[in-house]
Amino acid sequence: MTPAEPSDPGEQPPTLHVPSGDARLDLDRARRTGDPEVVFGQGKTPVQVVEILAALHAAHPDRAVLATRLDDAARAAVRGGLPGAVVDEVARTALLGPVPAPVGDVVVVTAGTSDLPVAHEAVVTLQTHGAGVELVTDVGVAGLQRVLEVRERLAAADVVVVVAGMEGALASVVGGLVGSPVVAVPTSVGYGAALGGVTTLLAMLTSCAPGVSVVNIDNGYGAGVCAARIVRVGRG
Amino acid sequence: MTPAEPSDPGEQPPTLHVPSGDARLDLDRARRTGDPEVVFGQGKTPVQVVEILAALHAAHPDRAVLATRLDDAARAAVRGGLPGAVVDEVARTALLGPVPAPVGDVVVVTAGTSDLPVAHEAVVTLQTHGAGVELVTDVGVAGLQRVLEVRERLAAADVVVVVAGMEGALASVVGGLVGSPVVAVPTSVGYGAALGGVTTLLAMLTSCAPGVSVVNIDNGYGAGVCAARIVRVGRG
Amino acid sequence: MTPAEPSDPGEQPPTLHVPSGDARLDLDRARRTGDPEVVFGQGKTPVQVVEILAALHAAHPDRAVLATRLDDAARAAVRGGLPGAVVDEVARTALLGPVPAPVGDVVVVTAGTSDLPVAHEAVVTLQTHGAGVELVTDVGVAGLQRVLEVRERLAAADVVVVVAGMEGALASVVGGLVGSPVVAVPTSVGYGAALGGVTTLLAMLTSCAPGVSVVNIDNGYGAGVCAARIVRVGRG
Amino acid sequence: MTPAEPSDPGEQPPTLHVPSGDARLDLDRARRTGDPEVVFGQGKTPVQVVEILAALHAAHPDRAVLATRLDDAARAAVRGGLPGAVVDEVARTALLGPVPAPVGDVVVVTAGTSDLPVAHEAVVTLQTHGAGVELVTDVGVAGLQRVLEVRERLAAADVVVVVAGMEGALASVVGGLVGSPVVAVPTSVGYGAALGGVTTLLAMLTSCAPGVSVVNIDNGYGAGVCAARIVRVGRG
Amino acid sequence: MTPAEPSDPGEQPPTLHVPSGDARLDLDRARRTGDPEVVFGQGKTPVQVVEILAALHAAHPDRAVLATRLDDAARAAVRGGLPGAVVDEVARTALLGPVPAPVGDVVVVTAGTSDLPVAHEAVVTLQTHGAGVELVTDVGVAGLQRVLEVRERLAAADVVVVVAGMEGALASVVGGLVGSPVVAVPTSVGYGAALGGVTTLLAMLTSCAPGVSVVNIDNGYGAGVCAARIVRVGRG
Amino acid sequence: MTPAEPSDPGEQPPTLHVPSGDARLDLDRARRTGDPEVVFGQGKTPVQVVEILAALHAAHPDRAVLATRLDDAARAAVRGGLPGAVVDEVARTALLGPVPAPVGDVVVVTAGTSDLPVAHEAVVTLQTHGAGVELVTDVGVAGLQRVLEVRERLAAADVVVVVAGMEGALASVVGGLVGSPVVAVPTSVGYGAALGGVTTLLAMLTSCAPGVSVVNIDNGYGAGVCAARIVRVGRG
Amino acid sequence: MTPAEPSDPGEQPPTLHVPSGDARLDLDRARRTGDPEVVFGQGKTPVQVVEILAALHAAHPDRAVLATRLDDAARAAVRGGLPGAVVDEVARTALLGPVPAPVGDVVVVTAGTSDLPVAHEAVVTLQTHGAGVELVTDVGVAGLQRVLEVRERLAAADVVVVVAGMEGALASVVGGLVGSPVVAVPTSVGYGAALGGVTTLLAMLTSCAPGVSVVNIDNGYGAGVCAARIVRVGRG
Amino acid sequence: MTPAEPSDPGEQPPTLHVPSGDARLDLDRARRTGDPEVVFGQGKTPVQVVEILAALHAAHPDRAVLATRLDDAARAAVRGGLPGAVVDEVARTALLGPVPAPVGDVVVVTAGTSDLPVAHEAVVTLQTHGAGVELVTDVGVAGLQRVLEVRERLAAADVVVVVAGMEGALASVVGGLVGSPVVAVPTSVGYGAALGGVTTLLAMLTSCAPGVSVVNIDNGYGAGVCAARIVRVGRG
Repeated sequence: MTPAEPSDPGEQPPTLHVPSGDARLDLDRARRTGDPEVVFGQGKTPVQVVEILAALHAAHPDRAVLATRLDDAARAAVRGGLPGAVVDEVARTALLGPVPAPVGDVVVVTAGTSDLPVAHEAVVTLQTHGAGVELVTDVGVAGLQRVLEVRERLAAADVVVVVAGMEGALASVVGGLVGSPVVAVPTSVGYGAALGGVTTLLAMLTSCAPGVSVVNIDNGYGAGVCAARIVRVGRG
Repeated sequence: MTPAEPSDPGEQPPTLHVPSGDARLDLDRARRTGDPEVVFGQGKTPVQVVEILAALHAAHPDRAVLATRLDDAARAAVRGGLPGAVVDEVARTALLGPVPAPVGDVVVVTAGTSDLPVAHEAVVTLQTHGAGVELVTDVGVAGLQRVLEVRERLAAADVVVVVAGMEGALASVVGGLVGSPVVAVPTSVGYGAALGGVTTLLAMLTSCAPGVSVVNIDNGYGAGVCAARIVRVGRG
Repeated sequence: MTPAEPSDPGEQPPTLHVPSGDARLDLDRARRTGDPEVVFGQGKTPVQVVEILAALHAAHPDRAVLATRLDDAARAAVRGGLPGAVVDEVARTALLGPVPAPVGDVVVVTAGTSDLPVAHEAVVTLQTHGAGVELVTDVGVAGLQRVLEVRERLAAADVVVVVAGMEGALASVVGGLVGSPVVAVPTSVGYGAALGGVTTLLAMLTSCAPGVSVVNIDNGYGAGVCAARIVRVGRG
Repeated sequence: MTPAEPSDPGEQPPTLHVPSGDARLDLDRARRTGDPEVVFGQGKTPVQVVEILAALHAAHPDRAVLATRLDDAARAAVRGGLPGAVVDEVARTALLGPVPAPVGDVVVVTAGTSDLPVAHEAVVTLQTHGAGVELVTDVGVAGLQRVLEVRERLAAADVVVVVAGMEGALASVVGGLVGSPVVAVPTSVGYGAALGGVTTLLAMLTSCAPGVSVVNIDNGYGAGVCAARIVRVGRG
Repeated sequence: MTPAEPSDPGEQPPTLHVPSGDARLDLDRARRTGDPEVVFGQGKTPVQVVEILAALHAAHPDRAVLATRLDDAARAAVRGGLPGAVVDEVARTALLGPVPAPVGDVVVVTAGTSDLPVAHEAVVTLQTHGAGVELVTDVGVAGLQRVLEVRERLAAADVVVVVAGMEGALASVVGGLVGSPVVAVPTSVGYGAALGGVTTLLAMLTSCAPGVSVVNIDNGYGAGVCAARIVRVGRG
Repeated sequence: MTPAEPSDPGEQPPTLHVPSGDARLDLDRARRTGDPEVVFGQGKTPVQVVEILAALHAAHPDRAVLATRLDDAARAAVRGGLPGAVVDEVARTALLGPVPAPVGDVVVVTAGTSDLPVAHEAVVTLQTHGAGVELVTDVGVAGLQRVLEVRERLAAADVVVVVAGMEGALASVVGGLVGSPVVAVPTSVGYGAALGGVTTLLAMLTSCAPGVSVVNIDNGYGAGVCAARIVRVGRG
Repeated sequence: MTPAEPSDPGEQPPTLHVPSGDARLDLDRARRTGDPEVVFGQGKTPVQVVEILAALHAAHPDRAVLATRLDDAARAAVRGGLPGAVVDEVARTALLGPVPAPVGDVVVVTAGTSDLPVAHEAVVTLQTHGAGVELVTDVGVAGLQRVLEVRERLAAADVVVVVAGMEGALASVVGGLVGSPVVAVPTSVGYGAALGGVTTLLAMLTSCAPGVSVVNIDNGYGAGVCAARIVRVGRG
Repeated sequence: MTPAEPSDPGEQPPTLHVPSGDARLDLDRARRTGDPEVVFGQGKTPVQVVEILAALHAAHPDRAVLATRLDDAARAAVRGGLPGAVVDEVARTALLGPVPAPVGDVVVVTAGTSDLPVAHEAVVTLQTHGAGVELVTDVGVAGLQRVLEVRERLAAADVVVVVAGMEGALASVVGGLVGSPVVAVPTSVGYGAALGGVTTLLAMLTSCAPGVSVVNIDNGYGAGVCAARIVRVGRG
């Protein structure tokens, strides 16, 4: 950017030349971390989402690129402009390019129906990052027999991603049932004392079960990356 | 869910098969707790609300099923699609199926007019769960003679549910007048330092009157379940 | 209190006559609520605790009086000065006078060993208020089989008092197992994100299980009064 | 302060000449506001308290000077060093010099015994500032008949100062009974959800009764100044 | 309310008879406190506002009734339905009936232009309650000479109401300039760290100037009632 | 403002004469501080923005005047009504009048694309206040090589303004790389635990790198003023 | 527990039989999770710590048992009473019994010296749970070259545990440098706006680098368990 | 660190070889930033403080090294062990080695006596970093004439450091009086709603005066570094 030139009184003020929109892409990321590129769609226009996805896909057609947090308009634009993309209406994601062969066994488990969008975001992220994944839904602890029914499945997984809102007790219950790492995702499901997910977040962080680590509220993507990296450990 | 298959570069990425909407219903709840099923309407579409209510009613036509937190569209859909349902415009609820004969004597008492929706939700929940209930309104402590006028009525109840916003002082005043359990419901009525009901909640929790327990902000349903269970105690 | 008199410059300022220590006792409470008198020991000197207990006991030797939150010095003073008192070292309470015959069946259940002082305070309060009570300890959800082992006992109780710290998940798990009222007591057990019990409190308030109401942090006494009043409901 | 001089390597570094303890006294305050000088004792040594009191008294022997928040050592030092001072053990204050003739009628009312130190601080402040004052104690709303018994006395006052901890409901109850200004002082009495007085403060600020204004937690002095200024209004 | 009757399976569930909208008006308030009736308009429909105002005015045509927090629709409805009402577009109030002759001298002072709606609400409330009032605007401390210019006017007032947002420093500055009571109203003007007025509120409560008491955020009405009551003190 | 006159019962209530909109402009500011006038556009109508800009420009056509936080309508109004104004769509500002010749060298650096509006506001403010400025974008620490690439440029600046959201780590990283003052601007970019920028703000304040000071969330204007004043230091 | 028996007035009240200290040990944990038993020493007496360690060691002499959060007295008691124990003065831990052969490669990295106790707790936990571990200290981002110097070492690890206080920026920097899972431990190192570690915690949760998950403040033990479980993934 | 070796059951567990105390000093800092080394004394033993100071002084006897936050024992140890050190009892600092010749003109200004320790820490830091500095005390805004008396002195400074607790209004008042950069240091002076300095911090961040930036609570050192760097700008 060129600093504004000195100017005489009365003269037309100089036009500002602040550049905008020229994102300094972190093109080194795949080499450095092994993860694919991901576009955070929130705050971007539908046109921007389509353009960025298309550009990244053109740059490396053999690798997947994922866009998350796409609103209705953005998903429609992707459907219209990028016929090869896989759009997930629940996860609010779009995926372009081939996903890797799945490795390992991640189970994503939810407490209630309202947690599904976040859980789907985790599932799609895991698939994009090359992890094997299964989704198990509606095992909230208010009906404890439900989580007990899937106990063996949880214990067999390499990693369990727990997606829950409200008091998030499912993270502790699962953490006490398995010996594998548990990644907990608090959701903003709840009201009042749930404080938009903050209570859930803090409760999961104080879980009485060891082996539980936590990501940000509604951050299904972050949990997916964590779990995908975990299943790569020990497998070269 | 089937994990995504390995795929070749350039090939169409696999369609994601994450199932959605297949709620794992807690069908065991009535047997385990004695409570009817309740549908939390917030975040559900009108169509979903109608379908779930219809399905549950069909599964056990002799028991009531309640839906709460229904917005205008959902209530209209229920009126249109389920003529047998009783819709309460203040409580924002819909009730399908016969309610049990009322047992016990619960008084729901409110501080101000703005607390009525929460109080009505508590009343409908109590009726649905088989408790006898009376509603007493507008006895906020700023005009203390009002609560003193209903003092005998409150003292005669098995349980008192206090619904109040702002500083929630009514919970302490009622707690000092009666010897029965008091279930306090903080409401989000107020502004500024009321912090959306959080101040009311914390104030009720620090009540100088013993015998007061508290539920979440605006949780008329939760208070109703608590009170309904209390009146069953000692009555088999 | 007599207001200070006018005074001339240079004269000795008047002595202030603010009375202190003459508590306006709520002697009507037993008649109004049916509950015994309770002395909140925190902030009182050992001498004050002994004197108040002795005075109340002398006023009605046929009813119990309870003192809570007694520190080491106060408990020692009670032991020395009031040989008839029952001092509980875990609950940090002292009880003087006969307790009523127990009515009903309350189970107090704890998540971990550190929750015991609060649980004992609840137990002693229940006994003082005439409720039958049993204590079940160490059933935290990190080892889920423990709470499942006592499932039948919990389901048989009139009321369950859940005492837990950290994320307080036990309240939700118990709330999903029983159909009776659950009174949850968050404890300040935990550190960091537990925020001195505030996280536990908020988590319990957002429990996914209905029928759970909550009292203040570490308030075993308050939970005891709630539960004791509940078991009186329907029993005249 | 003289800035440090330049210095050669190896030379002894200059002594720092930062002055300390030379308070820039606001000697104009009495003329500007009509209030006497007050020494905030917290954080000052006993010696400092005695010296400042002595100096201010010497400067104007015909006016009172007040010291607040004196710990045990400071109060003992004042008793030893300033025989003419009136030390209040409950209020933790010391007063030197003649107080003005009392004007008006302020009632300071407390919810419980633990609120007495703050209430006494308000009373002493009022006397020092020339207001007539009476203290009424232990009328917490958990036993509502107590505040009703003093209703006429409260209604007759020019101003009522309400001192209460926990949920602070007394402020709302008094605010609904009188037509005079109410100054509410939240105290840090309470635990857990009381958040060290913050809940009390916020609850009083959201009082449903108009005419209530609030000062800082435990700020009996501030409430006293407010009330003393109020009784001067309209009296010249 | 009549409790729901027992019902047979299959039968139409009883219609709920929960009454709504029948506010228990505190008609005794004027006699008890001397204040006029005030309708809090937030959350009420335009029709409700007009009806309540009309009813109260009919009940006592010789006393003013005030409605606050009226949105655009409500103000339009009042203009249309109650030609005798005085509607203030800045204060968002409507006033019906004669106001008392003004007594005393209150100055309402604002920091910035954005504080005007709250300040106007205070002014109208003061007029309705019979207090003499003058409004002084835009004396925020960022340009200190502005408040110094009005220093004499502030010092001459019986009471000063300070309306300010952001850090609320004006309350401390005014509190240091006058010897009369200061009622501070924090406004929600500001962003980010202002936390919707909470920072302003807390800052005013910790003011270094004595004699300042505080009301809720944006509560011009509450400050007006406080100040109006203060000017009545000592004037019978 | 003229206080309302006394009125007889039944008479039409007096019209309120509360003045509005007559802002007491701080015309002395330029002389006192050397800074140009700035109009905070938030909460002002497009018409008000245009009128104030025009009036200030007419009063001193040889100095720049800046308006910030202009919404779409306000920017359109300025474009239409003030052809000489420079409107920045990213910064959401309008500038009227000649800017001073730039002095010094400020670098404004951003972590991500979403931080651009705040960064542009800082850049425009700096230009308006006569500072030389360059914008460096997208050097968030998740791809550390990006900030290392511009390390020399940052170290050469007189001042660095760091604009970042989320955890704001860029402030610490830059603070550790340079010896010049760093002014950090937390942005509200982020979600969940970012708490609308509060976490970013607090994190920047606890930066492990010395020499970093912080302004309010999203306050690009404030950071610009700070940096512009800093570059004037030592240059007369 | 036997409920108190009914009693006659005047009679000695029954002794309370509430059991204490009989912890319901989760003996199934090793089988269920593969983790060794760990004793949380905080709040336990030195005698209790020694007894529990001895008992667990006697029950399974071929497996390690770990005690954490031991204060000075507890560590001294272990040294005196359990000569075979390995006591770590920095980690404040005691370890009894043989540790497993180490598997995998965990790097624990700290920002500053004050973070060492938490880092050591993580290291000891990792060793006890059978993970290979190396500690790298003092690479806080205020001196960025330090973390760059160990960049290759971090990139080679299976898992990186980042231990940092204050703003916790090290988590983001490391998260951007490696492709392995990062477990972040916020510490309570810092003051003021660090809020006892809460700011650090929230900042780490909003890290701009993906692949970072977080445990509770100062929870070196929890991070150790997470990392130990991660290195077992894919290795049978 | 060498990972623990595999071990046989029954064998003595290996001694842990976690290194401790070997701080990775940032020796490059002076070259990179121009600032001297500073030892943060909090949490270090007196012996550690003396040793580190001695070592750093030996490494570069011609440059100053500063230690801050030294408690009584540490300051005594420095006096005993390092006779050449300058210990400041108010600032709680120790300085070893020659300070640079002072450049520029910084004024450090305090609101009250209790702010002096933080102000002295800023002064000593400024001297150590080579800035000219003067301390002006006790100009809190409750007595506004005090700050007006020093107005010219403040306006003449290159930078003003404002040190204030409670509501921190002095920052806004000074910010409105000068055109130079203002660095504000909130102190933890205050109680109740001051929230240990958090209110002061937030209030300063929302200051209505532009040109004010803020450092952490009680961070006199940080403010000193900021101001020292600012006076170097434009002076080469």
